[in-house]
Amino acid sequence: MGNWRDNIRQVVPYTPGEQPKRTNLIKLNTNENPYPPSKKVQETMDQITGWRLYPDPAASKLVHALAEYHGLNDDQVFVGVGSDDVLAMSFMTFFNSDKPILFPDITYSFYDVWADLFKIPYKTKALDEHFNIKSEDYKAPNGGIIFPNPNAPTGVLVDLDFIEDILKANQDVIVIVDEAYIDFGGVSAKPLLKKYENLLVVQTYSKSRSLAGLRIGYAMGNSELIKALNDVKYSFNSYTMNQPAIAIGAAVLEDEEYFRETTEKIIHTREWFKNEMSELGFSFEDSKSNFLFVTHKSAKAKDIFEAAKEKDIFVRYFDKPRIDNYLRITIGTDEEMKQFLNFVRAFLGEE
Amino acid sequence: MGNWRDNIRQVVPYTPGEQPKRTNLIKLNTNENPYPPSKKVQETMDQITGWRLYPDPAASKLVHALAEYHGLNDDQVFVGVGSDDVLAMSFMTFFNSDKPILFPDITYSFYDVWADLFKIPYKTKALDEHFNIKSEDYKAPNGGIIFPNPNAPTGVLVDLDFIEDILKANQDVIVIVDEAYIDFGGVSAKPLLKKYENLLVVQTYSKSRSLAGLRIGYAMGNSELIKALNDVKYSFNSYTMNQPAIAIGAAVLEDEEYFRETTEKIIHTREWFKNEMSELGFSFEDSKSNFLFVTHKSAKAKDIFEAAKEKDIFVRYFDKPRIDNYLRITIGTDEEMKQFLNFVRAFLGEE
Repeated sequence: MGNWRDNIRQVVPYTPGEQPKRTNLIKLNTNENPYPPSKKVQETMDQITGWRLYPDPAASKLVHALAEYHGLNDDQVFVGVGSDDVLAMSFMTFFNSDKPILFPDITYSFYDVWADLFKIPYKTKALDEHFNIKSEDYKAPNGGIIFPNPNAPTGVLVDLDFIEDILKANQDVIVIVDEAYIDFGGVSAKPLLKKYENLLVVQTYSKSRSLAGLRIGYAMGNSELIKALNDVKYSFNSYTMNQPAIAIGAAVLEDEEYFRETTEKIIHTREWFKNEMSELGFSFEDSKSNFLFVTHKSAKAKDIFEAAKEKDIFVRYFDKPRIDNYLRITIGTDEEMKQFLNFVRAFLGEE
Repeated sequence: MGNWRDNIRQVVPYTPGEQPKRTNLIKLNTNENPYPPSKKVQETMDQITGWRLYPDPAASKLVHALAEYHGLNDDQVFVGVGSDDVLAMSFMTFFNSDKPILFPDITYSFYDVWADLFKIPYKTKALDEHFNIKSEDYKAPNGGIIFPNPNAPTGVLVDLDFIEDILKANQDVIVIVDEAYIDFGGVSAKPLLKKYENLLVVQTYSKSRSLAGLRIGYAMGNSELIKALNDVKYSFNSYTMNQPAIAIGAAVLEDEEYFRETTEKIIHTREWFKNEMSELGFSFEDSKSNFLFVTHKSAKAKDIFEAAKEKDIFVRYFDKPRIDNYLRITIGTDEEMKQFLNFVRAFLGEE
């Protein structure tokens, strides 16, 4: 009796970045946007009715707005509860080969968690010493490929020729480009969708659109891939997107000006911050994301991380091979970055 | 080249009830609540800030409010994107045996879809001729048990002695009682949680709380089961519950008076509607849910379904063995049910 424990799925869950409940702190640990979202959010909230009704299972309004925004057909867009939901569904839908899927050794730490959860075989491929993905690593037999562009937590971007090279060599599997951070200076792989029917491009509202709290992500691909994703989604939960997410997600796409203004502000802050950090003895690859992945010539990353936390400044530290002397620092407002720099100066001065 | 199709997961997706986009119709097909949700919804919406931040991954505010409401500890409550999300996660988490899981042959049509999706072996057990679950059917070796109480689409309720009998015989597997419709006159299995650590009770905001559009469901169980669910959830998507769902979900629990008032109204309408339907020659088992599952002595269910649709009245018809001459009719407002009855009278008169 009591053997019910035997059939419980054993997993090592993903550890999300800390979400401290206090508000009086500098939070540079989970790549959120320091600026509030478009004013369309509050305007739209006030117009939502029909709470008692199930949402449109196809979330057509949101799908249509995204398709129009990206110059695609409606049947080329799939939406989910953040890009994590979209990616998890994609793993379940597309990675059913006996051959291992491939992704970088240093990358978004959810990929191996999903592979373990769904019992998908995988192999990681080591980035070079400058954290570049080596395209030749992705020309071995495999059951699918996924990488973020820019990569996380490194911030390093690859160009479209690089992606096309990988696509050409892998036309028998699905290749997923995870573009969570693409709006901070990268070029999306979207144009390659016309040429490669096995490409899936995933984006999110959580970073560049300042809406991590609303949970919207989406995939763009050929209609056959999108249908397969929807079939799995309908087999899991017909109604993943709630009424506020559908309505607000569609509405904010109309506010392109604000979107450009805030992403440009972050890019500007990032470039200035890079100079300041160099001067303080930090090195890093050239980030095209809303974070910087840094290591210091003498101070230990873990010590900086812990000292910062004492001062209510949260950055991200990964206790993992190859990157355990690095910090990932989200780009906040100029004022937040100045406070961070002041902390670092004091910390280094005390050493 | 182009063999990427080979590794796509093949599924027969669940077919949700139609969600017609027009508004000028009588919608009795997906068991939504005819009354709007508590006024707390709009009040809470206006107070939501922090859109740009990730939600609390533990959704602690909502979990705590639910625990308090149900007289449980916080670590006994798991929340998800509607009870479909909670149930899908539960299938993945708890049903990992080689033995088949068991559920009724006539029941919520998502159970076999999840079993197929996650490759879980299952056996269905036939309800008796009055749509009763036979407890002896659930005393065979199995990998887990799930049934709704009241059952859907029959509306038939079992009592706590019946559930305890099944629990006693199945202490080596997880037993899930899906209480989506419990607030319309049933007694929850919640008190049995103290005695049976392998029991999971699942409820939803979509029916009795008039919030299908917000997507909130939850499971109650012993802390070990809830931890296992959270581990799987964190391996799938750390942030499933968005800011509006967490805030509103907690707030509406304070409006107990409105909750009781509207559920009682629906019960009252249902009992009156039963009489009317009997008089029109329909028969049905005694529903304790917010729907009635009916068959007519002469008119064919499918014909009624199609004729109703012509008049913009939507009810649910399942083209499945044993129930293909039945209709599931959601209990709406008195006025909606009167219009439905007028339609039926006219339809039967024309025959």
